[in-house]
Amino acid sequence: MRDVAVLSYGLTPFGRHDASVVDLLASASQVALEESGTEAVDAVFVGNMSSGEFEGRSGIANALVSELGLEPAFPSKVENTSGSGGAAFLLGWAGIVSGLYDRVLVAGGERMSSVDTGRATEIIASLTHPVEHAQGITLPGYAGLMARAYLDRYGAPREALAAVAVKNHYNGARNPNAQFQEEVSMERVMDSPMIADPLRLFDFCPITDGAAAIVLSAAKGTERTAERPVHVRGVGGASDTQVVHEREDLTAMKAVRLAAERAYAMAGLGPEAMDVAEVHDMATILEIVQTEELGFFPRGEGWKAAQDGVTSLKGTKPVNTSGGLKAKGHPLGATGVAQIAEVCAQLQGRSGDRQVEARVGLACNVAGFGNDSIVTVLEGPA
Amino acid sequence: MRDVAVLSYGLTPFGRHDASVVDLLASASQVALEESGTEAVDAVFVGNMSSGEFEGRSGIANALVSELGLEPAFPSKVENTSGSGGAAFLLGWAGIVSGLYDRVLVAGGERMSSVDTGRATEIIASLTHPVEHAQGITLPGYAGLMARAYLDRYGAPREALAAVAVKNHYNGARNPNAQFQEEVSMERVMDSPMIADPLRLFDFCPITDGAAAIVLSAAKGTERTAERPVHVRGVGGASDTQVVHEREDLTAMKAVRLAAERAYAMAGLGPEAMDVAEVHDMATILEIVQTEELGFFPRGEGWKAAQDGVTSLKGTKPVNTSGGLKAKGHPLGATGVAQIAEVCAQLQGRSGDRQVEARVGLACNVAGFGNDSIVTVLEGPA
Repeated sequence: MRDVAVLSYGLTPFGRHDASVVDLLASASQVALEESGTEAVDAVFVGNMSSGEFEGRSGIANALVSELGLEPAFPSKVENTSGSGGAAFLLGWAGIVSGLYDRVLVAGGERMSSVDTGRATEIIASLTHPVEHAQGITLPGYAGLMARAYLDRYGAPREALAAVAVKNHYNGARNPNAQFQEEVSMERVMDSPMIADPLRLFDFCPITDGAAAIVLSAAKGTERTAERPVHVRGVGGASDTQVVHEREDLTAMKAVRLAAERAYAMAGLGPEAMDVAEVHDMATILEIVQTEELGFFPRGEGWKAAQDGVTSLKGTKPVNTSGGLKAKGHPLGATGVAQIAEVCAQLQGRSGDRQVEARVGLACNVAGFGNDSIVTVLEGPA
Repeated sequence: MRDVAVLSYGLTPFGRHDASVVDLLASASQVALEESGTEAVDAVFVGNMSSGEFEGRSGIANALVSELGLEPAFPSKVENTSGSGGAAFLLGWAGIVSGLYDRVLVAGGERMSSVDTGRATEIIASLTHPVEHAQGITLPGYAGLMARAYLDRYGAPREALAAVAVKNHYNGARNPNAQFQEEVSMERVMDSPMIADPLRLFDFCPITDGAAAIVLSAAKGTERTAERPVHVRGVGGASDTQVVHEREDLTAMKAVRLAAERAYAMAGLGPEAMDVAEVHDMATILEIVQTEELGFFPRGEGWKAAQDGVTSLKGTKPVNTSGGLKAKGHPLGATGVAQIAEVCAQLQGRSGDRQVEARVGLACNVAGFGNDSIVTVLEGPA
């Protein structure tokens, strides 16, 4: 299989922006293109969920190509809800492995603040199955159900969930691109307004504008253009039922487990080899469950790792060093790309105050409420 | 490069449907899956432009996987405006060539009748550059400008444009899935209401609901499951500037020319080898210009071929045997997939009253107003 490398990455600050999603994508892409020394790419893959609903724009991949003057590069927008960025990366990687392309730009972005929070929640909920959607379920609602079931089944304390929020805010306070760069106390999380019992406001990621971009290349010959390329060792994608009540286990995320198995198999590496990981903590409970499904901890024990600091910057398995969706923010289509950018930063030793020791890492992007997942295993420069 | 074959295809009738886009996609996919004898696929690629705006649905690729019980197949929706179907096919093909997948479902669909024609036109126009969009331009408006420039420059008569509509209605009358299965006279086209001078109502494709699906497979070993596989010999994609007024020539479609060059080069075949072609006749003028850019006729002479019947069912270069977007209909995301299905039908000798003699053919799908294009070269069973 053709060796593919990440040459460079670029990010906008995550938070509120007046700029359009195309401008945000262009801004992140310019940073990535400049750093890679690349002036032309063969194709552009854009991860974005709902530019039509948020801003009345379609064809934004084509718009990005034109904005950057990258014609005749072939544009595709990939929509896989909150997993759009990871899916765009996976398809860009496949484009290079197939031999169709030698170099591609993968950019993910979303501008969500153009609508109010209620409308944003409804746009996101449009990914749910009509049968469940008609009952008024939203993504936070699903997360509340999962959290309740998890705490009951495994006898975990509510504080274990809050520990994820405290940790991710601690990390976000060390990430200059994060939406929330402020530490929070356990008390503040536990006292925040109830959203979906037992989950409170500080258990959830915010509404965010932002973009991230990556230049991917066939690895051979990149030594000249990229100082310290990161190699893509494994990718995997898998889906679960869209209808959540049809799943075997409400405290599991089967799509994450299967996607990880595939990525590990391709990489020839297992969970024990992962020195750092970005996971999809749309809600605190989801980080805990994903660390189990990724094989970092046994089922029902992820909460202990969160509570004991195992997943903190100083722990043996640092998770969401960026601050995660929780503190870094979650511009839907940007997230999968930003996760990979964070892992690359860690593997290249460019993470400043949040740097951990890492040679191999993974990114786990999730679409919907575990509807599908993309896991990417990356290895840093020797 | 890994040999990839189309095992089977399926279509819904094109026209008006009460079913949702997911139901339409499922319906076409079931036909394709059944005919291929395939029960599982590795991934599902959905071509769709605006399910969010038309129906308030996102994540429809995930929904399709679940509707068909294809989990854990990995879903991606590919949005490339009116070129979404072709882009989904191209990325599905690359997924197999890369070795990541062995078998994929590519389905394209759109349900447009959920909104009125004015709103549909506005949704489509959301792909234009904001600078031009602000002037009130729509896709039909661009086509009118191109038609006027073409007629002026090449001294072509207005009737040459109408000849495309007459031909495509003739073909559509022989396609049981076409939206318009009625022949029209030159007079009827020439007397229809003016839309964008010199183009009239019958110069344009209609608003359409519908879906098309294809099962793609690594060709090796498919002899058992597909009676008469069609082989993918070449694919090419390319973009032009999004801003139409920045293009060098208003009567050209550079993205089509470049995409065709790439597809021909990969196939090792040129335009003279194409026995049949489906092109993107959103308006009559676009069929004429595309037959030039594809290299079938010299620049400025495509109109003569249209007028002289060269592109008719009995001509030497039959184009849009399906009836084209004009008569078959144009459910945005479905079109690129339906075009490939039509070429396969012709290559397999399954086209009934509209059958032509063909061993090799191509499909040319266009995004926006020539913003980008995907050309696919296919070769029939020996």
